[in-house]
Amino acid sequence: MALADTRFSDRRRKLAAELAGQRIDAVLVTHLTHVRYLSGFSGSNGGLLLRKDLTAQVATDGRYTTQIAREVPDLEAIQGRAVGKVLLQQFADVEGPVRVGFEADYLSVSELKDLEEFAPESVTLVPIAGVIEKIRLVKDSLELEKLEEIAALANQALEDLLAAGELRAGRTERQVAADLEYRMRMLGSERVSFDTIVASGPNSAMPHHGADDRVIEDGDLVTIDFGAHLRGFNSDCTRTYVVGTANDFAKEIYDVVLRAQKAGVAASVPGAKLADVDAACRDVISAAGYGDYFVHSTGHGVGLDVHEAPSAAQTGKGELAAGMTLTIEPGIYVPGKGGVRIEDTLIITDGAPKIITAATKEFTELPA
Amino acid sequence: MALADTRFSDRRRKLAAELAGQRIDAVLVTHLTHVRYLSGFSGSNGGLLLRKDLTAQVATDGRYTTQIAREVPDLEAIQGRAVGKVLLQQFADVEGPVRVGFEADYLSVSELKDLEEFAPESVTLVPIAGVIEKIRLVKDSLELEKLEEIAALANQALEDLLAAGELRAGRTERQVAADLEYRMRMLGSERVSFDTIVASGPNSAMPHHGADDRVIEDGDLVTIDFGAHLRGFNSDCTRTYVVGTANDFAKEIYDVVLRAQKAGVAASVPGAKLADVDAACRDVISAAGYGDYFVHSTGHGVGLDVHEAPSAAQTGKGELAAGMTLTIEPGIYVPGKGGVRIEDTLIITDGAPKIITAATKEFTELPA
Repeated sequence: MALADTRFSDRRRKLAAELAGQRIDAVLVTHLTHVRYLSGFSGSNGGLLLRKDLTAQVATDGRYTTQIAREVPDLEAIQGRAVGKVLLQQFADVEGPVRVGFEADYLSVSELKDLEEFAPESVTLVPIAGVIEKIRLVKDSLELEKLEEIAALANQALEDLLAAGELRAGRTERQVAADLEYRMRMLGSERVSFDTIVASGPNSAMPHHGADDRVIEDGDLVTIDFGAHLRGFNSDCTRTYVVGTANDFAKEIYDVVLRAQKAGVAASVPGAKLADVDAACRDVISAAGYGDYFVHSTGHGVGLDVHEAPSAAQTGKGELAAGMTLTIEPGIYVPGKGGVRIEDTLIITDGAPKIITAATKEFTELPA
Repeated sequence: MALADTRFSDRRRKLAAELAGQRIDAVLVTHLTHVRYLSGFSGSNGGLLLRKDLTAQVATDGRYTTQIAREVPDLEAIQGRAVGKVLLQQFADVEGPVRVGFEADYLSVSELKDLEEFAPESVTLVPIAGVIEKIRLVKDSLELEKLEEIAALANQALEDLLAAGELRAGRTERQVAADLEYRMRMLGSERVSFDTIVASGPNSAMPHHGADDRVIEDGDLVTIDFGAHLRGFNSDCTRTYVVGTANDFAKEIYDVVLRAQKAGVAASVPGAKLADVDAACRDVISAAGYGDYFVHSTGHGVGLDVHEAPSAAQTGKGELAAGMTLTIEPGIYVPGKGGVRIEDTLIITDGAPKIITAATKEFTELPA
């Protein structure tokens, strides 16, 4: 427990430091992912109030009284269903003015109005945005361990699926998705981190295809994009296989995407500009004449959210640093003919990035 | 298609009628569930602008151009990633003032600020809330058909699980949850409508327990709360079984909860006050001396959201009407000893409610 306590209080210290310049006396955290990140509380209703002096309180309702005492032993817990209101009530006897930051990217207009009507007179609510996300960018060693663990679990499920021959001609996309999800679940995943994609044949040309009743045929490209979720953390990985014998088109675009993907991985070092990481992938695909068919950005961070900062895009801002995570997932999608996407999740280190999505990405023809 | 078109335009007509008294010239719908409800568009980025005169436009980005044309053949589609902004842009050449309603319960404070900065000068943004939810309360025949279909699918999965003996002593809660989810998925479910609960033995005393590594034992109460999702619609059902031979405590609380549940079902007729439906359940449990152990409300609507209006609670407002859905799900939870919850989803009709969750709820001891 001692380790965990330090971790959460370290994060709260970073948040207080980030807010020091912002003329804010305290911050009210109500986005559940952030409440968990800053306190360890994992229930479905909770809030955190952090003051400049680093004193903090959490709040939840009666369903979670026992759980919050166990998960957040270092902070006082206040009971109430309307967590924002009961936390602001802590300022009822304070002579104002007290400027309290709220999470403008997550609080709805109605929720803010409700808080404003209820808040003690001394309180002024001030929008903050992007501050906690900025702290989340660089993961600590325990977070990275958890991310490696969930990525390994998902990878095991994929390897087992292939070993069992469950991805083959004659089966539907949905059956393959169900098998993969079942294998992740039996290995301990709490849920999928997003709807599993199994996109076969012409469907592989649609980057946002789900998994439907199409029957996989001999010669199909099949793109599988999948993730598991465990104790708050997510995984994200894509592989594309050929079921049966590939035609020349499939071989060609696979080769281009794989070269692009490896170039993106190689570019993912501390100090690299995110726009340059995107360009490293994109340039390979453009040089091969498929630039118009790479219709999305190169990658994103993975953590408490399956899509989070940073963003490796043409419009990406900022640089990579050790401890960040990043997917590298270029694709080529040719309508009517098929598509390929290959995605790894990386941990940025002081040297070459660590790939935590272990399945081979070399061109693979599976038995039909 | 003709049928579908009428259905969506009928809903838009109802929305315009609801807003007639509100001094609003148009409404900007950006909550995706509502965009789907009012237009049929099911993509992950979309918006709808509806004017008082019933003219309307939808917006989405380039990924969904083909899909929106297929799903929304009766409305003009505008392309743009920032759907709210491109829709408000339709008023750029209009001499104001134009009062446009926005969804205050769903739009974040940041999103509103962004829209306000970008909106043409003629536009004033006005908060609206609860109006579309009110229209969604009473389902049309096609919605009810879809809700019956997904409830039947989930029920089939449960019946198959029991027939296969997958709920038995020696298995973990997670394995049982994984099997049930797999069966729903193979029957066509797109995803779970919420995290499956398999709460065994002492865990059954926690209404919000998930499904963990606890091994089910002979004599355990096991509560299974589960739902499937298909084409936008959700199911919700809970059954509690005894694995092996029940003790007297289990038999007693099962009997009380079942009588309460049946009383709640019987009370669910058009014109019944929602607080009275809750009381019908609660009174049976209180009379048996377990009132303090029924720690949640009696039920909720099920539709595009797995939890939606109406709410059958002690503080519930309003009355039931034909075409609404409602769960009736009383429970008794005795810490350290165990719990029972029994939940049906009902369709309110002109006569007795139609129960669409078909599995038997009579007391059942499964082979250990």
